[in-house]
Amino acid sequence: MPESAHAQPVVGIIGGMGPEATVQLMARLIARTPARDDADHVHVIVESNPKIPSRIAHLVDGTGEDPTPELVRIARNLERAGATFLAMPCNTAHGYAPAIGAAVGVPLLNMVELTTARVQALVPRGRVGLLASTAVHKTALYRHAFAPHGLQVALPEDQAAVMALIQRVKRGDTGPAAAAELARLAASFGGTIDCLLIACTELSLLTFALPQQPPWVDALEVLTEAILARALPTVGAVVADAT
Amino acid sequence: MPESAHAQPVVGIIGGMGPEATVQLMARLIARTPARDDADHVHVIVESNPKIPSRIAHLVDGTGEDPTPELVRIARNLERAGATFLAMPCNTAHGYAPAIGAAVGVPLLNMVELTTARVQALVPRGRVGLLASTAVHKTALYRHAFAPHGLQVALPEDQAAVMALIQRVKRGDTGPAAAAELARLAASFGGTIDCLLIACTELSLLTFALPQQPPWVDALEVLTEAILARALPTVGAVVADAT
Repeated sequence: MPESAHAQPVVGIIGGMGPEATVQLMARLIARTPARDDADHVHVIVESNPKIPSRIAHLVDGTGEDPTPELVRIARNLERAGATFLAMPCNTAHGYAPAIGAAVGVPLLNMVELTTARVQALVPRGRVGLLASTAVHKTALYRHAFAPHGLQVALPEDQAAVMALIQRVKRGDTGPAAAAELARLAASFGGTIDCLLIACTELSLLTFALPQQPPWVDALEVLTEAILARALPTVGAVVADAT
Repeated sequence: MPESAHAQPVVGIIGGMGPEATVQLMARLIARTPARDDADHVHVIVESNPKIPSRIAHLVDGTGEDPTPELVRIARNLERAGATFLAMPCNTAHGYAPAIGAAVGVPLLNMVELTTARVQALVPRGRVGLLASTAVHKTALYRHAFAPHGLQVALPEDQAAVMALIQRVKRGDTGPAAAAELARLAASFGGTIDCLLIACTELSLLTFALPQQPPWVDALEVLTEAILARALPTVGAVVADAT
């Protein structure tokens, strides 16, 4: 009998980018699981290494250490520890997703591709306001993913303010004032976009104060649902119906 | 040069008992760390397996499967993955701590012993109201740890209400009404105790509404500080000063 007939799904989380986003993903996995007792929840193995070399320093400044070797080491470590598939709650780090995926024998859920599919279903060929790190813009991570679907990327007027907010979250401020700043940045697109995309897991911690218009998609939420769809077949059916 | 001069501390967390308590420990580690950027945080490897056989069913009912083999497997898995010390955010599971500690080559921080030392420092030879699972009472986990220090355990009048509250948290209710129920159970000891001990990590999620009197100790908070003291020497000094 093949191993998969016996093996329970175990999600391996490549974490620490930042640590809060990793914890937020774990908390959302719990909150979105209809559970009556511990055993209903998902089996998770996490390596949260906050000392993974900065993706931003490497991709934007071009001076920082390449994080690929450490990301690959963690992915292999999680596979060896028993993970049957991997997820990485950091949009910027998906610039390294091909290298990570090639280094392991288990699938890596690609948050950027999953999020692109969600956006496409919501606003086909739409114009999408992208709130993300400068490294995501510079590597054109979403621009490349969007292109085959005819989706367009709109950049915020004040990218420096976006980076300042990301750094603020990394210093531990996820309070109402920080959330209001995210809402202000969202509003700054005016009527020029069809949809807003929150594509930085630090900013995902601040979505609680976002208005419903324009409609928005949070990449971390898309990843959460994709993990549950794979790990909990029943929940997966529910999520698929709702999509 | 000794290994410790090179090796960065990596805490391995034996988690999933329940999953919320594991996430809460990780969130507290982040919140208690004075961080200016990701890299200031602690390197953590977590295996959160919510399907570890029930400690309560094994210890109280005497019918359930023995969780020892799975706890030992996880501890060894974390050691192999690179953990330099281990922690287990579940009071009840500390009944198996000797078996786990004997199976690995890295230290397991013992939450029960650490908490006993904290209580002893706060109320020497005091009478301590113990809010914990029935399994903790039945195995006399804290009674045995307290005895050499002359500390006494006081049990709540309504242990069934304590267990109902623990199950309520495991179903996902950590709201104000659940927290008010913890405060009611705390008050039910009246003036008969010198200190209250929250010794169930589900109940640790509800301490936000506890009054300051009687003074209380939360075992999960003690474990959080002990992990930081070991993983971040600077913070450790601060914590030690404050104790």
